[in-house]
Parts: sequence; C-alpha cells; structure tokens
Amino acid sequence: MPVDWQKLYARRAEAMRASDIREILKITAQPEVISLAGGLPAPELFPIDEYRRAFEWVLETEGSVALQYGPSEGYRPLREFLARRLEAFGIHSSAEDILITNGSQQALDLIGKILLDPGDAVLVENPSYLGAIQAFNQYQARYAVVPMDDEGMRVDAVERLLDDRARTGPPIKFIYAIPNFQNPTGRSMSLVRRQRLVELAAEYGVPIVEDDPYGELRYEGAHLPSLKALDSTGCVIYLGTFSKILAPGFRLGWIVAAQGAMAGLLHGKQPADLHTGMIQQMATFEVCKNGFVDSHVERIKAFYKERRDVMLQALSEHFPADAAYTRPAGGLFVWAELPRFLDTRELLLDAIEDKVAFVPGQGFHADNTGTNTMRLNFSNVPPDQLREGVRRLGVAIQRRLSVRSETRVGI
Amino acid sequence: MPVDWQKLYARRAEAMRASDIREILKITAQPEVISLAGGLPAPELFPIDEYRRAFEWVLETEGSVALQYGPSEGYRPLREFLARRLEAFGIHSSAEDILITNGSQQALDLIGKILLDPGDAVLVENPSYLGAIQAFNQYQARYAVVPMDDEGMRVDAVERLLDDRARTGPPIKFIYAIPNFQNPTGRSMSLVRRQRLVELAAEYGVPIVEDDPYGELRYEGAHLPSLKALDSTGCVIYLGTFSKILAPGFRLGWIVAAQGAMAGLLHGKQPADLHTGMIQQMATFEVCKNGFVDSHVERIKAFYKERRDVMLQALSEHFPADAAYTRPAGGLFVWAELPRFLDTRELLLDAIEDKVAFVPGQGFHADNTGTNTMRLNFSNVPPDQLREGVRRLGVAIQRRLSVRSETRVGI
Repeated sequence: MPVDWQKLYARRAEAMRASDIREILKITAQPEVISLAGGLPAPELFPIDEYRRAFEWVLETEGSVALQYGPSEGYRPLREFLARRLEAFGIHSSAEDILITNGSQQALDLIGKILLDPGDAVLVENPSYLGAIQAFNQYQARYAVVPMDDEGMRVDAVERLLDDRARTGPPIKFIYAIPNFQNPTGRSMSLVRRQRLVELAAEYGVPIVEDDPYGELRYEGAHLPSLKALDSTGCVIYLGTFSKILAPGFRLGWIVAAQGAMAGLLHGKQPADLHTGMIQQMATFEVCKNGFVDSHVERIKAFYKERRDVMLQALSEHFPADAAYTRPAGGLFVWAELPRFLDTRELLLDAIEDKVAFVPGQGFHADNTGTNTMRLNFSNVPPDQLREGVRRLGVAIQRRLSVRSETRVGI
Repeated sequence: MPVDWQKLYARRAEAMRASDIREILKITAQPEVISLAGGLPAPELFPIDEYRRAFEWVLETEGSVALQYGPSEGYRPLREFLARRLEAFGIHSSAEDILITNGSQQALDLIGKILLDPGDAVLVENPSYLGAIQAFNQYQARYAVVPMDDEGMRVDAVERLLDDRARTGPPIKFIYAIPNFQNPTGRSMSLVRRQRLVELAAEYGVPIVEDDPYGELRYEGAHLPSLKALDSTGCVIYLGTFSKILAPGFRLGWIVAAQGAMAGLLHGKQPADLHTGMIQQMATFEVCKNGFVDSHVERIKAFYKERRDVMLQALSEHFPADAAYTRPAGGLFVWAELPRFLDTRELLLDAIEDKVAFVPGQGFHADNTGTNTMRLNFSNVPPDQLREGVRRLGVAIQRRLSVRSETRVGI
C-alpha cells in the first residue's frame, strides 16, 4: 500500500501552510509586474565588494576553520563584536548571552519550540509579522491580540489581558512585539509605552520577545531605546539580524537572552541544524569588525528615506480619500486600510492584471481580521516604479470602489 | 517578579538536552588530547581553493542574487545538479523532488516536525545516530528499537515490530535507517535486507527515512544501492549532505522525497528559516558543476582508507581480547563493545586523564542501553596520533579491567 502522507502528518501540520507572501512573490516574479509585495532590501545596497574581500580573506587565512563544523552558539568573534556593538544601543550583554541563528526566522522557530505547548497563548500586536505567526503556529499556539494605534501596541490593552489571563487563564506564555517600524504597519511604539510594557512583563513574569530587524533604519526623529535596553530583569529576548543592514541571503541573525532562556535555546539549536554556517559568520565578522556597518547604515537610510518619501507622495496623489495609510519614520513598509467592504485578496487579483502586486493584510492578523488592509513595500522598488506602481494600485482600488457605488445605486 | 524560565519551558524541552558529543568536544578541545570523539572530516581534504574561486566567481557575476533572499526550496541549479548526480546512483528524481536543508540535521528536524505527534513511535536501529534521536526527541517521539548485526538492521525484527504495532498499536510512524557505514557502528545493511526493508515499508505503508551521509565513502567492496534506489512506491525519504564529500561548515544537505511528503517539508522549512543561505548553495554549485566532486571523493576515500587501516591495526594490537569492534568498509567510525561491566562514561574520565577521548555509546541507544559501548572516529586524526590514541585507550581499558579482576579476587 502506498504511503498516505496526508494521514501521517502530525497534528501541528494542520496549522502550517505555505506563506501568502512567498506564494505571491512567485506569481509576481514576472518582470513586468511592479512588486510592492516583498520585504526585500534593495540589492543596489548590498556590500558585494566588501564581502568579496572578506570571503577571500577568510578562505586564505582560516579556510579549514570556515569549512569545518563550528560551535552551536556561533562564531565567537562575531558574538563578541555584536555584544560590543549592542552596547552602543544601550543593550548590555556579553558573547555568552548571544546565540547566532539563521536569520531572525530561526530565532522565532527556536523560541516557539522551547516555550510553546499546544494551546499556549502568545500575545501579539494586531496585525503582526506573518512569519512569526507561522513560526508559532508550528507549535499550535493560540493568540491574544492587542490593537495598535499610531503609538504602536496598545499597552493598556496588554495590561488588561495579562491581568485577566493571570486570573482566569490560560496565561500568556510570552509577548511578541516589533517596537520599531513594525512589519507590517511601519508603526513604532512610543517611549512611554516601551517603558510600561517592560514594567508589565517584569511585574507579571511574562517574557517579551522583541523582534528588531528595522531598528537602525530610522529616517527621521530620535532613536528610541529598544525594550531590551530598558530591561533590567532579563525578561526580554532580543532578536537582531543582518538581513536589513547588510544582506538577507546569508541568513544571519542573533538572539540576546538571559542565561535561563539561553540554555533552552541552545538545546533547541543543536538538533535543528548543529550550528549556523561558519563561513558566512566569519565573512560577516570581517566585513563588520572595523566599523563598516555604521557608515553603511547611513547610506541605506538615505536611500530608503527617498523611496519612502516617493511612496508617501504617490499615495497622497493616487489613493482615494477614504483609504488610510501610515507614514512610517523608518523600516520598509507602509500599511494601508481601505474601506471595510473592500477585500484586498480580491483586489490583488485585479492588481496583478494591472501589473502591480502587494500583500493582502489578512495573513498578518492572528485573529483573521483585516480583510480590507494591505502592506506596501518601498525598499526594493526604484522611485519611478514606485510612483507607477502606486498609480496602478490607485486605479485598481478606484475601479473596485466605483463598482461598489454602482451596485449601491442599483439597489 | 523575575521570569521563571524553567517553569515556562514547553513539555518537549524535557527531552531536549545538550548533545553528549558536543559537550565532549568542548572538553577535548585542549590540543594535547587526542580526540577519537568527533565525527569531523579531515580538514586537510577541504577544497579550499575551489571554494575560493567559487565564492569569487559568484560574487563577481551574481552578487546581488547571492546576497538577496532566495527560494525556500533551494537554489534551483544546485537542485538540478543533485537530481542529475543522484541518477548515477540509481535515484530517479527531478529538482521538484529536492529540498535544500542546513545539513542533514535540519532534514531530521523537519521530518520530526511534520510527522511526529507526542508519543508517536519511530523505528530505529539500536544503536542509531545520536543527532537523529535528539531531533525526534524534540517532538516527544518514542522509539521501537531493532537490533543490528554485521549485516546491519535486523529486518526480520522490523517485520515483527511492524506487524505487532499495526495490530496492537501504537503504529510505527516511520523507520529511520542509515544503511551505509552507519553512525555510530560503521556497519552496512546487506543488499537482501535493503530489498526486504523497502518491500516491508511499501507493504505496511510506513515510510523510511534513509540517512546517507557516508554512502560514497566506501573503501572496499562493491557499492550497494541505496534504499531510495530500490524504492518504486515513493516510500523512502532520502537525506544527503555535502558535509562528508566537500565540507560540513557550510551546513548544506538535501532531501529527496515524494511530492506528498515534499509539501509538508516545505511548509516546515519556511517558518524554520525561510531558506538556506544562498551564497553557499551557489558556491557549492560552482564547485560541483564540472564533476569536481567525483574526483574529490576518490581522494577522500584513499585518505580515509589509510586511517581506517591504521585504527584497525592499532585496535588489534592494543585492545583486550574481550573487546569486540567493527571493521567498517567505509565511513568514519569504528564501534567497540567492551565487557558488560565496563561503563564507558566512567572510562571516558580515565581516558581524558590519559589525554585521549571517544564518545560513550549509551547516547546512541534509544533504549538507553549500551553502557559498555564506544564510538571511535578515524577520519579526523593523523595516523601517528591514531596509533597513540588507541594505545592510550587500550591502557585505560586494561587498567579498568584489572581493577575489576582485583575486585573479583577480593570478593
């Protein structure tokens, strides 16, 4: 009898589905489609020459280390570099507190793996990062969703939830937050809310997983301290990544966590893949060690700021008055909310006909709402295409809106 | 209140412990210790120059692809190359049947993730690969163990187990086997047993996970077909890796599986890390595409064959007559069984005093037996050190044996 794979799948497989985004990215890979869908950095900014020299150097001087098995914790000089660099952002750590991961995505997987039993509740912003929801879905998480406003996660709602759940259960296992230029909304959490959130976490003994891929990509306003920088009790697990400040293709991120969490994370990392590839860690250390990344980030910021401005200008010209959208101070994304009756999954079909793509927002909502929302990326699209893409999208939306008003008239 | 991490850990974390081997490797990192413990390839064989040229080429010609996000399935030219190369080993597949993983370790994690509910039974050889047991432990597997002899897994026992469990449950979820030069024993499964095992799998509808990191490293005798090459129904999930034929530091392996399994594996790969790093896939494709790997494997085989012969010769000179050990026709390991009363975890403490290390065998036994067994690696130790290491180990064993006879005399 042939193997019946569907029957053999574990229960967790039911919650594991292909990523909306990755499926959309495949459809939109046709060159004539202007894709506002991905979350990709601009390849023009990749430090290719720096990496070319770094790989050359690593292979010439330490080739047999680079090609051999390495430590599960990660390449020590890179961990030491990160501890030093994070100090400048107010995060006090040593190499022992840092675990190298295959991008932040693996960090999310490891955190789910060690903390989540089936049915455990994760508190998430609504909307939140799709990849995090997918990572936690693997461990059959449930979600307690907290609304956002222009100051980010509504921390008053967090307090009510923690309090309710502590009394009536099931308790919140951890809080997942993206305080800076959140994916998907581009919103940032205010300083007062950051302080209060960290206080609440310590008060209730509920850890925070702080995902911070975009923290350095601020185009205006003053830097705000990360939750980890405000954390005096070790309740914050901080996730960083090189994906947006150097390049994502290496899959290189890191976790900063208290020793009590680090032990479990390391026991999760070993059976997952033994360790992260050595050569990309060593080459990245070579690229970083003399301060390159700081000047490079300045270049990225100037580049993306222009694209953000172009997108916001185009949105003001081409989007209907009853569409709301965010004005992010950093990061890669603008978030739009259309009139409630408009389903952005259906809109995407029209949009692709018109040769423009975006990500419908529903997948970012752990509570499955947000059918009228969309995520727009500006980092990976040249300015003229950004203008044209937003224009096409505006046309597609207007068409849907006028169909609706005709229907109304018809009634 | 501070976060109580121990209390927050998921139930699965109880079964997740640091690897014996990796902890031992840390202890034995002192240069004066001769380590027969690791499973490391010889760094002298790493194709460093080939990779130097390959990284240079990739960064010069396709840098912005190499540094960008890539497909979850893996770099397509590498998957196509693998499909072509596997054809020579009797495995018929196309790129669509191949998923690139971060070494075979990630493949084991993904398989556990999509197939194992808590309490599900995996049929394993006894002993089996420690890293596989650790991967499946994460998903709270139980084990049905099958003894081995010099022809490998006892397939008659497999049949009895499948039959019993199909009737009285819990059924076997899948069979995990390392048919070639098994880790830890160095044993290989005979052709007759391979054929019968694949028949049984198809008959009972129970998939086989075939882990084949050493299949090409045969030092004598004729190549035997892999289980996948004998599989006409798609019941075998085949795991391959570049770790032992090129280098392990890149963490680069692959899965060949039927579409019914591939869908689930891909849904497990995305939330795990989005995709395997692009540049190491692209550079490995460059190194491989013109046939380098075939000639390189010949070089590895000649090199390791010498080391195997040296180890077997040293064992015959220095190990006591009542110690049994395998004579592997390939791979990296010799397996030894000492008299039953001798606990190799205790012996290891003596051995480290004598500046030699090995891996105690108990951790490879899913049923926690094998306290008198040990795994000895010959691939990563130069011949003179192999001789000296085995001599030191023989002395440490003899000392334990004579303490025992003194105790006996004393009784």
